[in-house]
Amino acid sequence: MEPPGAGVGKAGDFDAAGEPGPPRRSPPVSVAAVLPAGGSGERLGGSTPKQFCPVLGRPLISYTVRAIERINWISDIVVVVSPENIETMKSIVRKYGHERTTIVEGGLTRHRSIFNGLKTFVKGNTFCSPLQKPEIIVIHDAVRPFVEEDILFKVVMAAKEHGAAGAIRPLVSTVIASTTDGCLDHSLDRAKYRASEMPQAFLFDKIHQAYLQCSDYDLDYGTECLHLALNYSKINAKLIEGPSDLWKVTYKWDLFAADCLIKDTISQEVCIITDIKEDAVQMGFLLHEKMRNHVKHVKDIAVSLHKNDNLQNILLGQCYSLICIKNKLSSFEEISQLVDILENTSASVLYPVVLISVYLGILENASFNSEIESLTKLAKEVKKKNILLYGLFIQYKKDNLKLQETMDSAAALITVLIRERNPAFVGQLLVA
Amino acid sequence: MEPPGAGVGKAGDFDAAGEPGPPRRSPPVSVAAVLPAGGSGERLGGSTPKQFCPVLGRPLISYTVRAIERINWISDIVVVVSPENIETMKSIVRKYGHERTTIVEGGLTRHRSIFNGLKTFVKGNTFCSPLQKPEIIVIHDAVRPFVEEDILFKVVMAAKEHGAAGAIRPLVSTVIASTTDGCLDHSLDRAKYRASEMPQAFLFDKIHQAYLQCSDYDLDYGTECLHLALNYSKINAKLIEGPSDLWKVTYKWDLFAADCLIKDTISQEVCIITDIKEDAVQMGFLLHEKMRNHVKHVKDIAVSLHKNDNLQNILLGQCYSLICIKNKLSSFEEISQLVDILENTSASVLYPVVLISVYLGILENASFNSEIESLTKLAKEVKKKNILLYGLFIQYKKDNLKLQETMDSAAALITVLIRERNPAFVGQLLVA
Repeated sequence: MEPPGAGVGKAGDFDAAGEPGPPRRSPPVSVAAVLPAGGSGERLGGSTPKQFCPVLGRPLISYTVRAIERINWISDIVVVVSPENIETMKSIVRKYGHERTTIVEGGLTRHRSIFNGLKTFVKGNTFCSPLQKPEIIVIHDAVRPFVEEDILFKVVMAAKEHGAAGAIRPLVSTVIASTTDGCLDHSLDRAKYRASEMPQAFLFDKIHQAYLQCSDYDLDYGTECLHLALNYSKINAKLIEGPSDLWKVTYKWDLFAADCLIKDTISQEVCIITDIKEDAVQMGFLLHEKMRNHVKHVKDIAVSLHKNDNLQNILLGQCYSLICIKNKLSSFEEISQLVDILENTSASVLYPVVLISVYLGILENASFNSEIESLTKLAKEVKKKNILLYGLFIQYKKDNLKLQETMDSAAALITVLIRERNPAFVGQLLVA
Repeated sequence: MEPPGAGVGKAGDFDAAGEPGPPRRSPPVSVAAVLPAGGSGERLGGSTPKQFCPVLGRPLISYTVRAIERINWISDIVVVVSPENIETMKSIVRKYGHERTTIVEGGLTRHRSIFNGLKTFVKGNTFCSPLQKPEIIVIHDAVRPFVEEDILFKVVMAAKEHGAAGAIRPLVSTVIASTTDGCLDHSLDRAKYRASEMPQAFLFDKIHQAYLQCSDYDLDYGTECLHLALNYSKINAKLIEGPSDLWKVTYKWDLFAADCLIKDTISQEVCIITDIKEDAVQMGFLLHEKMRNHVKHVKDIAVSLHKNDNLQNILLGQCYSLICIKNKLSSFEEISQLVDILENTSASVLYPVVLISVYLGILENASFNSEIESLTKLAKEVKKKNILLYGLFIQYKKDNLKLQETMDSAAALITVLIRERNPAFVGQLLVA
């Protein structure tokens, strides 16, 4: 059900995107996670806190929770939200089927929220019956959705050895200290400093102890857990160089970027379903060739949709983009069947699924009017199920050169429909 | 020819986007600018250096140059590029009509490139006949395209008073120092430090003197001009809090974000052109009402396209999105005329211009086939001129309730076409 190698869209550099990582063993410790999500999102400029902003229709925090919950060696996920967002968070957990998730009320500051999260693992806490206390606790920001198993594994293993560990990144800008009158005092040597990022991991008892001992000033004005571990538990955390995609959604354009990255990942695999009739199969073959220039993985299924026993199994894989090729414009019965099958896989709960109904024909002979109406109607209906249905008419030309050109144009249109996943265009009949 | 208040797309917070800033007087000093653009873009992961990556088809650096050159009190713009990119940069300057721009060969490091840039203002330099030496020199990164006149004015004025000044931003992450074995040594108090950003400005003689005096180590391993000014010219630069959109395009997703921000800005103004026939005017009025829910500024022009004396003047304003409403499907003559007018304004040199040809009609009576072919053909042709032509058929319904619904759908489609500016969809005929 997940994009290959990435719970929420792999955000690495160009060549790394979407490739499945190496299989990883579980760390030999019990692990749970706390996600502080009490922020107000002031820097974003909008009224919705950034963790609840929709990306492809789903709140950002759901991507982060999903990225953690798909790692089976993390037992519990505690999400700490401000009191006014408890109900919102509950409905997110319900709607997207998040498992092993406990919602806890946050404090007024980030540190107070994390502290509340830790308390849920301790007997006699005021929030819930205590969760099983883990040896290692991971702390991760709700607004860093692109966290991979690899870095989580590394910080957990380092925390087991050193007591605490955290992901770091090189500084993008020089850091400077200012005088009291707003002038440069000194600049730091970029090579000697790092940006502290998330995830971080701690021996549970050590970080819990640090929170119990630290001052109100720490709880109110501090932000850095590694600092508390150093000051109150005398632990020099191990610093782990993390991938660039650990970046934190902070500003409006970070949401744009997250949107593009997620679309990029879930568009890397396309499934072409053709009728068993010869024309359609041949066209499917041609389209397959062309699509390979645009996306990484193209799967072909030549199948009679009326005998769909194994189609559901195939779709249970990791495919959010389907192309269905037919050689007549009129019948929507098959598309309806496909929608039913898709619904059973519940793929569209997490991501909008693109379904492109491709027709072959001769433009001069085509009569679009009634088809447009039927397509629009069906598209409107399935959009409610998060399935985005588009129509594409491919002009069938015997002339081989022109056919190549038409197929290039078809592949380009399909690629854009898949990448953009734009709900406004559903029900439109494009022509290649 | 520019989007309101923003040379390249205002990237501020939600409420600030696209609003024209207050008119500003020129600073009472002579000012020139140096843009170091020699970077290799390793962090981006691609082979093209990030400053040359296309955004809406135009290299990123062109947006930055444009942002500086539209400020009339900056006399010269020196762009410093690595030797292998001199020709690329020359062709960018030619193609996008950049004025007051001098291209200089960079050194192996950032500081050496900036130094080369400064030398162009000094007699006897090896690059060119010397440019007029300014009192104040602005240094700005080629990969920060969203720089506004306001912050440039502030750093220039502060540099005049203090000798040097630079834009700063709050730190997004905590900064930490590591021990030699990769563990946490200490973390910095986020409140006491700032990220040093660009633009920066200096008294020319002071920064030039600093570069003449500094060590080879500084030139090879340093990055911070403010640091050189402090060390070699004993100037404590004034630090100016800059807007959030000064951010530097560093990673792949920063390009996604820049793309979205620029599209967002140039889509804030829409011009509706209607035939003077009553049906079209009325539909234009309805569409105007609906579009106001989606974009900030909607201009109406009811005009006979055959008498287009004043249309060109109107289009010479700041509009990259045009909707042309007609009450028959067949005639493309008027669209061709509009394209000619658009070409004369040369708006499409800097940004792709969206032109949506809207037809009114009754779906049952329509025959699309020949129209689709003509539309596709014309669209293909004008795409070469960076004009993106789309067709939209609005079903005319007498029933008032249904008409409202249709117009809502039309406005939604138009909004998406304008915002996405997707070249793949040109020549398509959408139906609302």
